[in-house]
Parts: sequence; C-alpha cells; structure tokens
Amino acid sequence: MRPKIYLFGDSITEESFGDGGWGASLAHHFSRTVDVVLRGYSGYNTRWALQVLERVFPMSSENREDAPLAVTVFFGANDACLPDRCSAFQHVPVNEYKQNLHSIVSFLKKRWPTTRILLITPPPIDEDGRLRHPYIDNPSNLPERTNKAAGAYSEACVAVARESGNPVIDLWTKMQQFPDWEKAHLRDGLHLTPQGNMVVIEEVVLKLKNEGLSLESLPVDLPLINNIDPIDPLKAFQN
Amino acid sequence: MRPKIYLFGDSITEESFGDGGWGASLAHHFSRTVDVVLRGYSGYNTRWALQVLERVFPMSSENREDAPLAVTVFFGANDACLPDRCSAFQHVPVNEYKQNLHSIVSFLKKRWPTTRILLITPPPIDEDGRLRHPYIDNPSNLPERTNKAAGAYSEACVAVARESGNPVIDLWTKMQQFPDWEKAHLRDGLHLTPQGNMVVIEEVVLKLKNEGLSLESLPVDLPLINNIDPIDPLKAFQN
Repeated sequence: MRPKIYLFGDSITEESFGDGGWGASLAHHFSRTVDVVLRGYSGYNTRWALQVLERVFPMSSENREDAPLAVTVFFGANDACLPDRCSAFQHVPVNEYKQNLHSIVSFLKKRWPTTRILLITPPPIDEDGRLRHPYIDNPSNLPERTNKAAGAYSEACVAVARESGNPVIDLWTKMQQFPDWEKAHLRDGLHLTPQGNMVVIEEVVLKLKNEGLSLESLPVDLPLINNIDPIDPLKAFQN
Repeated sequence: MRPKIYLFGDSITEESFGDGGWGASLAHHFSRTVDVVLRGYSGYNTRWALQVLERVFPMSSENREDAPLAVTVFFGANDACLPDRCSAFQHVPVNEYKQNLHSIVSFLKKRWPTTRILLITPPPIDEDGRLRHPYIDNPSNLPERTNKAAGAYSEACVAVARESGNPVIDLWTKMQQFPDWEKAHLRDGLHLTPQGNMVVIEEVVLKLKNEGLSLESLPVDLPLINNIDPIDPLKAFQN
C-alpha cells in the first residue's frame, strides 16, 4: 500500500487540483510514491473544520498502519473575513482561530503520532481584487477581507506551529516578497494564480523534504522502467 | 469514506497529474465526491501489468466496502512497440495484449463485481514526433512505434470491451478526427499535450456519466458552502 498525504483546508485546497494547482503538482511530484488525498472544503473556517474532523479523518480498524505520512492544514482565509462586512458569517475571532488550529493539530497528533503536520498560513489579500471579484452581494463596496486582518491570522498560525513544534509555511509573508504579488499570485485577491500555486508547491515540497519526506527517501511503487533489464524484463517482477 | 476511482495504466496515466493532465482534471472535477487514485507505471505493457496486479490492487479485510467506483485501464502504447525496433523489449504481440487485457478486466471484475471498468485504447502515433523525441538510443532512425501498429492494438482493446461488456474510449480513432492531431494532441508523438489531455478528460467524464457516475448522482462530502445557513452555520453540521 502506498502511503498518503492529506491536504486539509478550505477552497485554496479544494481547488488545488485545477490548472497549475499545487495539489495536482504535489500528486505529480510523488506520482510513484505517495497518494495525495484531497480534503478541501470551500468556504470553511476552523470552527466548521472542528465540527467535521471525525468525518474527514474517520477512525478505522486499519487505522494504525494507515497513518498518513503528512497532513497539510491550510485554514484562515475564511476565519479572517471581517466581522462587520458581507462575509461576516465565516468570521472566527483570531484567538478562537488559534485555539481551533491547536485542536486540529492535537486531534491529528493523537490519532497518528508519527504523521507530520504541515501548517500553512492564509495568503495575503489583494483588497482591490476582492472588490473586483465579489463572491456574494457586497453593497458596502468595502472588501470583506483585508491584508492586515489576514496578517494577524497568519501570525497566529505561525505561533501555533511554534507552540506545537510543527513546521509551517508563512505564505502571507512569503508571497509579499514577490513584486506585483497582488495580481501575479492572486486571481481574485484571494485564490491562487498558477504562479501563486508555484510558491505553495515549492514550499510544500521543501518543508516535506525537511521532514524527511522526499523522492530520495520514499520507496518507489514497483520497478521503474530504468531498472527493468531489457534482456529479461520479467526478472524485475519476481520479488 | 469517499469512494475511489483508480487510474491504472502506463506513462500516459503516470504523468496525468502534470500540467493540464487528465488525471488532475478528473480529481478536480470530483473534488468533493471521489478520490482519484493514481496507479500509472511508465513504460509498462500489459504483460508486466499482469505481473503486478495483486500488488497494485491488494486484497484487504475491508475490501468489499472498499470497492472503487471505477478503474480506468489504459495500456497498449508500449505493447505496440515494434518487435524489431529500438524499444522491442516492451513489445507484446497483439493477440497476447488482447488476452492480457481480458485477464486484467476479469481480475478486477472478480475482486469488485460492481466496479465499472473503463478501457482506454492507446492514442495514435505521430511517427515524425517519435523520431524527433527518442526516449532511448535509436541508431536505425526508424520510429519504434507506428500509427498503424497502434491502430491494431486499439482495435483489440475495443474488441475486449465489446466481448467483456465494458465501456471503452477509442482514443486512437477519436484523436485522429481533429485537424493537426499529430502536433496539437501529442507533444512527442505519443504523450499528450494539454489539448490532447482535454480529449481524454472529456471522454472519461462522459463515459463515467453514462455509467451513472457523475456530479449529479454522487453524494457530496460534507455540506457545501451554499447549503450553510449564514444565520446559523453550525446547524449544517449537526447530522
């Protein structure tokens, strides 16, 4: 059985197998070594994620041997909706967000002690993009998410990683180091362009490698064509 | 637990999560309903596939409830290598190819009687492309695959589908209906361009729909954001 990596998060995870998406890129990267399992839920915040944890990661009799290699936990973009704007129903206060993230990490660590938990902060917000591409009716003409608010949730996520001893990708900071990140990395002020997806996949591959999970270290599923003897191909399949 | 669709095949399956790939597109299409599981093995023919069937689809105690919705079986491009050219070690005679495909289908049907088996024929071959992009040393300067040979394997695959009562995508015929298919659909005379991948994904989605497997018929994993009441979001998670 191939080992698994779960991608758990909101829409930025759910749509990660679209064109140029970071989830598909990860599955491609590990195409002979790991099953990348998509568990993205558009619009979800950490409060809702906590409600569904047991259903997303059901306990099974095979559970122990079925421990995934890693789980990416990528929430905060919806928690960071402002409480007095058009997407207020998705808002979660930053202190609760922090506590919820800790609870998600604890749940996963308790279920699978050896599994690596890779936290990912919400991306930065291009407020102009959010006004140009509203998801719902927004009569106030004020962005429902701001970059400053996303930054506070990103900081909280980094703190959870530090406090729980898990790796983190500070996407909010990382993305803003690129020129024109607002339009180059975000297609609607929040969701990722192919170039934005590149930032995520490069970081995910790097962090997993730091955790010992790389093409160099993971066993390949069945003989590679280069290891099959052209003179006696069936020999490769005898073990 | 989400149901699964396995993609079983050669390099055209293994690389199907690359940019614009049909596997990633299928995973994206079913992002909240189905886990698309990659089981592509570059260079493999049906003779080698038979050798590894039990390892690719291991029997487990949970096997009955774990029956996948569907398996795509996409072999033939390597079997169709000519027996007197530079990739002869991958060649499998067309009669054996046909028998091997029958054996693969029987194995899957015996293991999981309700699982849909979707056969896919090899794509057509652009011989000029094969000479421009050799995979191994080719001193003869004759293509190791020809379109005519691929056509014979495609016909055999269609016959297996008919004889076993399973759906099939006749990719060899379908692709050649497009103008400039040689360069538009094939990047090296054999493997798919993004446009070639589009032909495959459209056909796969259509055939699965014909088998009753579509977004309309499959249950969604957890409440969609549009079904969450903004006034009382947690209500959606009570069942």
